[in-house]
Amino acid sequence: MAEKVVIIGGGAAGPKTAAKLRRERADLTIDLYTQEDIISYSACGLPYFIENIIKNPETLILRTPEDFKKQNIDIHIKQKCIKVDTREKKVLIEDLRTTEVYEVSYDILVIATGAIPEIPNIKNVDLKNIFTLRTIQDGIKIKEKMFKSNKAVLIGGGYISIEVMEAFVKNNIQVTLIERNPHILKMFDDDFAKMITDYIIGRNPGQVNILTNEEVIMFQGNEQGEVTKVITASGKQIETDLVVLGTGVRPNTDFLIGSDIKLSVKNSIKVGNTMRTSKSGIYAVGDCTDNFSLITNRYTWVPMGSTANKEGRCAAINIAGGNCLFDGILNSTITRYFDFTISIIGISYQEALKLGFQPEYAIVTKRDKAGYMPDTGTLTLKLIADRNTHTILGIQGIGEGEVNQRINTVIPAILGKTKLESFMNLDLPYSPPYSPAIDPVLNAAQIVYHKINCEHL
Amino acid sequence: MAEKVVIIGGGAAGPKTAAKLRRERADLTIDLYTQEDIISYSACGLPYFIENIIKNPETLILRTPEDFKKQNIDIHIKQKCIKVDTREKKVLIEDLRTTEVYEVSYDILVIATGAIPEIPNIKNVDLKNIFTLRTIQDGIKIKEKMFKSNKAVLIGGGYISIEVMEAFVKNNIQVTLIERNPHILKMFDDDFAKMITDYIIGRNPGQVNILTNEEVIMFQGNEQGEVTKVITASGKQIETDLVVLGTGVRPNTDFLIGSDIKLSVKNSIKVGNTMRTSKSGIYAVGDCTDNFSLITNRYTWVPMGSTANKEGRCAAINIAGGNCLFDGILNSTITRYFDFTISIIGISYQEALKLGFQPEYAIVTKRDKAGYMPDTGTLTLKLIADRNTHTILGIQGIGEGEVNQRINTVIPAILGKTKLESFMNLDLPYSPPYSPAIDPVLNAAQIVYHKINCEHL
Repeated sequence: MAEKVVIIGGGAAGPKTAAKLRRERADLTIDLYTQEDIISYSACGLPYFIENIIKNPETLILRTPEDFKKQNIDIHIKQKCIKVDTREKKVLIEDLRTTEVYEVSYDILVIATGAIPEIPNIKNVDLKNIFTLRTIQDGIKIKEKMFKSNKAVLIGGGYISIEVMEAFVKNNIQVTLIERNPHILKMFDDDFAKMITDYIIGRNPGQVNILTNEEVIMFQGNEQGEVTKVITASGKQIETDLVVLGTGVRPNTDFLIGSDIKLSVKNSIKVGNTMRTSKSGIYAVGDCTDNFSLITNRYTWVPMGSTANKEGRCAAINIAGGNCLFDGILNSTITRYFDFTISIIGISYQEALKLGFQPEYAIVTKRDKAGYMPDTGTLTLKLIADRNTHTILGIQGIGEGEVNQRINTVIPAILGKTKLESFMNLDLPYSPPYSPAIDPVLNAAQIVYHKINCEHL
Repeated sequence: MAEKVVIIGGGAAGPKTAAKLRRERADLTIDLYTQEDIISYSACGLPYFIENIIKNPETLILRTPEDFKKQNIDIHIKQKCIKVDTREKKVLIEDLRTTEVYEVSYDILVIATGAIPEIPNIKNVDLKNIFTLRTIQDGIKIKEKMFKSNKAVLIGGGYISIEVMEAFVKNNIQVTLIERNPHILKMFDDDFAKMITDYIIGRNPGQVNILTNEEVIMFQGNEQGEVTKVITASGKQIETDLVVLGTGVRPNTDFLIGSDIKLSVKNSIKVGNTMRTSKSGIYAVGDCTDNFSLITNRYTWVPMGSTANKEGRCAAINIAGGNCLFDGILNSTITRYFDFTISIIGISYQEALKLGFQPEYAIVTKRDKAGYMPDTGTLTLKLIADRNTHTILGIQGIGEGEVNQRINTVIPAILGKTKLESFMNLDLPYSPPYSPAIDPVLNAAQIVYHKINCEHL
């Protein structure tokens, strides 16, 4: 009889594993169970659906259950995994439409249950029009409400709040963002977080308010049970038509607590670089797994759609009998606020200090093309390197100019532990429409190197 | 008495050396001699001046002699070096305004005489309106003539011809490009050269003609001595109002032939990675020097403005008593034809075969952003890797989508000899406005890796 592969979870990693595995092996049976009613969609695209750049939510769906059926993969929607029995090699599934519970046996199990929003413990958080943004249904609800609203409050200053803010500002909503830390985007250094904040405030004066060091203590509602006001610890009362909770996510692994599958950082599933868990025959991929940081050499948890896809692909190759290693991550993230790119790779200067490195840094603000070309943009980079090894620890990049090109140039150099001495003379291709003769990222490397060597600039 | 530094050449590398050296050392005397009447300008910007994106040629000048004077650097224009006497440590200079010849002694000499156009040995090549493009004066003359012309012929299918073609097409000139090789852009593989050619022809149907395997044997002129016709070996007669010779450049080192300064590839000046020549106290930088290829581990000659700037900076640090190594180049080049980017890094598949590598490649055509985002562009990448070492040998990238970001990602991986196994799972930052969840450059790496390993895709 054919080996039976069961996949739990239908976001990015599960469907990726299923599709890749089918291409590698025609002989296996593959069944995917998901608690949602759609699968294989891009959650990262939801802010752009809300913004209304994308009109139809189905655009975000990459493949339907019917598409998978053609590949001989059976998708079971509205089916929630409630328990894994590793000894008997079976999972307990609840049919969310009937509440019926049944068992499914497996030879190989792939857990890809993703992450779920962290709901803060705030009074009246269950009022109407207080949303989280994780599923397409969430996106549809927020968008519907947005079109009928004038004022919104975003709680938490991470990437999702920045992206939803763009959507709201574009749709003429008055926005207040509330962050309990001293600055938004806590993975950035203070200086960069301030520059980003200044840009956001300055881009639409009067339309955006950012409150930091501010804790929400309760919500107030009207007779219909709809949120009308947000109350903060410092006594501010902010009127609002809707609230989006961008207060983080956590691994969706509650159903594994008490099982013998080893958990890791924040209850993510402990996996090695083959995506195998601590139990033979069980793999885990995507946002529900831990991540190995190639910079700090420690386990961390950084849920990212790109990582989910790579892990799904790797797990599939390994299940199929191949050999794929997913070595780890570099904490790479990017987003934009309108035309302003916001990106950080690796660790910040402040984080490097905390971790015991001896970091040095350079900040450069430069044009992205030869200065005499029309339509140049400006970008600001902060390159952080280690005084002892001369290797790069991280880069922060912001601006309306072309940031991604520079950021990406640094990533393989971090991975390869390329020394600044080599990196600063890297042969990047030059032409006036693409960069200055010496690229800004090389300028930054030259400056850090000379700071480390105590030479003149 | 202060040590006396003499720099010969005023393009990119000489002025860069002078400026950096002054920042490092206030005590030296620095004199720069150039045969031209302006210095420190961007020759790479000339096609965009001709196109008329840049109106004023002075925009291309980065610094004037007066700017340098403020830094206590003396610029001597219209002064041509005709001989170097390494034993007596002096150079012979001709004042081009008076033809007077005089001696200048030095303690440190920096040769930065750049490259000069290669004039092909074609009958009547000295007719009026047959131009080369190297100096600002060349650019001004071509632009003036272009505005009075309807038809132009470009000879040679390198980057400069592509850039000048854009300028001419934009200004409604009928253009014929004549290339003697089987395809234009000879550093590219046949398949990519064909795709580039198809794009150029297709973009402005009827306005551009590209003739390959075609040799120009003579020019014909009118009574005023102006070119009117280009005659090819196959008997074609092409009427034209002007001709631009894009038939390559060579190191401007004729004045060194017979001296004891060692020459290298194509009579470029032999330099080590400190920019020292074979004679003590003499440095050379920029287009007049040879280059070490970090891919083939052989000396080559690839004149680039970006390399010139880096070499000038390195030479200055070393002259000042510091220690800067310029290890070599990766043959990185990029240009565009309107919105279509054209780039190659490292070596092509065909070149790799010739050099005795065992190369494998993948070609991918992908969107540059998440497919559901508006304004996505398409790009095509060809990634070439070595079967034996699993390291990357080169990448070719073309398209209206964002190519530069992907190309730059590969460059440090080539330098660092990162294996495909690591590179294909590289943690590039993902967000829908910037890339698909798995970046096209990683797709390409995954495919090459699996071709090498004879696994399924």
